Amino acid sequence: MNKLGIHRGDTFEEYINYSNIAYQRKKIALVQKISTPVKVLKRKGNKIVNGYFEQKSTLDFIGVYDELPISFDAKETKENRFPLKNIHQHQIEFMESWNLNGGRAFILVSFKSKDKVFRLEFDDLIFHWATWEENKGKRGFASIPYSFFEDDCQEIVSRNGILLDYLEGLK
Amino acid sequence: MNKLGIHRGDTFEEYINYSNIAYQRKKIALVQKISTPVKVLKRKGNKIVNGYFEQKSTLDFIGVYDELPISFDAKETKENRFPLKNIHQHQIEFMESWNLNGGRAFILVSFKSKDKVFRLEFDDLIFHWATWEENKGKRGFASIPYSFFEDDCQEIVSRNGILLDYLEGLK
Repeated sequence: MNKLGIHRGDTFEEYINYSNIAYQRKKIALVQKISTPVKVLKRKGNKIVNGYFEQKSTLDFIGVYDELPISFDAKETKENRFPLKNIHQHQIEFMESWNLNGGRAFILVSFKSKDKVFRLEFDDLIFHWATWEENKGKRGFASIPYSFFEDDCQEIVSRNGILLDYLEGLK
Repeated sequence: MNKLGIHRGDTFEEYINYSNIAYQRKKIALVQKISTPVKVLKRKGNKIVNGYFEQKSTLDFIGVYDELPISFDAKETKENRFPLKNIHQHQIEFMESWNLNGGRAFILVSFKSKDKVFRLEFDDLIFHWATWEENKGKRGFASIPYSFFEDDCQEIVSRNGILLDYLEGLK
């Protein structure tokens, strides 16, 4: 994403954090990074001396945008397709439940080699996921082709001072 | 909360977790506990050997209920009033921003000695908070009296198989 003129070392997730700060400043949305829970086994005062990361029960980001509850993950791939193994079963279940209750869940996918970011809606994800499940073991179902993103997904670009304006076209 | 017939050792937060499981099972809402972030300074393999808890950027619980983005904290007090020092400035700011963007933020307050739970809406909280700020140092402004909860807040009770049906009357 060199086009955006940001430090090359910055990660995709940092780009999203910058965008969230801008969204909040502009009073467009409030979106928070949800950190991975840590199971603490032993403490010495305030210091954790034995613990381990647990599985997150949500996606990486949760927020509210113009009365809409949103939740999403940020995924990056070096490939020219999106491998579905990047998504875990418990994330599918969370997204399904989130949407069922009236929220909007999606995945932001960054294709590093193409310098492009797209928003993959849950309905599109679940379609490919289910097709993959039905065809386990067969070739050609384990990823979503890049052309699908180009043809059917919202491309995410910098806009109005938002580094990655991933809410564009959501409502 | 012995009336509810649950193990006496259970905490208020566990009651809420049970309720959230029931809400999800009944497809009424999806609400997740947000864990306190840990800053990891040193790891050995999967084990965290040096780290500390950081301040949470949200409230303790976030979810979606019938298209409404909700967020709340659970607070327990042994006193017969609710001391406002239980709430931190950054939580007020989060709640304000959450509501501004169309969500609904509140505090669930458990009065242990009275065996009662109430839902304190943000608008009521901010009224008392602002009055406290304006009268810093004077007596009588640092807490919300119990009578306010009785007269102006939704009492939370067990209902329809939900241990603490804290969504009752929210919409």
